[in-house]
Amino acid sequence: MRFDGLLGFPGGFMQMRFDGLLGFPGGFVDRRYWSLEDGLNRVLGLGLGCVRLTEADYLCSHLTEGPHRVVAHFYARQLTLEELHTIEISAVHSRDHGLEVMGMVRVPLYTQKDRMGGLPNFLGNSFVGTAKFQLLFALKILNMVTSASVGGMAPLCRQRCGRAPAQGAGAAGWRAP
Amino acid sequence: MRFDGLLGFPGGFMQMRFDGLLGFPGGFVDRRYWSLEDGLNRVLGLGLGCVRLTEADYLCSHLTEGPHRVVAHFYARQLTLEELHTIEISAVHSRDHGLEVMGMVRVPLYTQKDRMGGLPNFLGNSFVGTAKFQLLFALKILNMVTSASVGGMAPLCRQRCGRAPAQGAGAAGWRAP
Repeated sequence: MRFDGLLGFPGGFMQMRFDGLLGFPGGFVDRRYWSLEDGLNRVLGLGLGCVRLTEADYLCSHLTEGPHRVVAHFYARQLTLEELHTIEISAVHSRDHGLEVMGMVRVPLYTQKDRMGGLPNFLGNSFVGTAKFQLLFALKILNMVTSASVGGMAPLCRQRCGRAPAQGAGAAGWRAP
Repeated sequence: MRFDGLLGFPGGFMQMRFDGLLGFPGGFVDRRYWSLEDGLNRVLGLGLGCVRLTEADYLCSHLTEGPHRVVAHFYARQLTLEELHTIEISAVHSRDHGLEVMGMVRVPLYTQKDRMGGLPNFLGNSFVGTAKFQLLFALKILNMVTSASVGGMAPLCRQRCGRAPAQGAGAAGWRAP
């Protein structure tokens, strides 16, 4: 079961991961020992330390494609700029830094005059699994950008997102074979 | 005149820029007031603060393509892990953070068993100007990775790199029209 938390609105942030891809803070959770949110907070605690997410922060779930089938649950929390900065400072001191996480980056939620600078360029980077869809979904649902600026990817995002069945979230969410 | 410093070996690092592209710390320098290295150190001081580069750190120069013709001078300095971490902490407190720079990321200088995780995935991200060539050139020249792992981009990198004529560096290096 993979939990991802989009923690950085306003000033959304992501991580450059050990594998060279951008993703959200999060990780796998063993449901034998943890509820979804407790597991997420435990995983986040290793890298961020100062944010606790609840069910109210739940946004969407994806079943990822590829050989490793993972249900990716996605949470979002609006933060003040001060809270965001506190997380960034905490992250650079965390034990994951330089190992699991190569660095945290803010997501530029704007488009510059050249129509590429900012979010469009950012979306041209390489993302892990469903992270790009999660980002686009969150931007749309949370009204962080206009539908027009999300562009042609929004329909695809809607198609792939949806609340996973409870039994799926509870039992089938491990990194299934 | 654009000065870029590749400051993070071992554990090379880059920046996620305001425009959503990855690049090296650096910026434009006004040669009326600054030598190349003084200008670079001044620009770096805004974002990093604790590293001073010299002529001995010079690596290569590029004339960038596109409407804005820029001579990009590239410097590299080997750092200890402690020095690198000090820079990362300094960067998150710098005045550029969240404005010019969205975050610093370490470059994964390895390839995982799946042959994509690490540097190959990282090279799939979006880079500004000549930053990707600078990175590949530095990796090769500084023997940070094998030629085989840099792969087909090495010949292209060699072709595009070369010491700019002195007069070019001195006089034509502004953001020429």
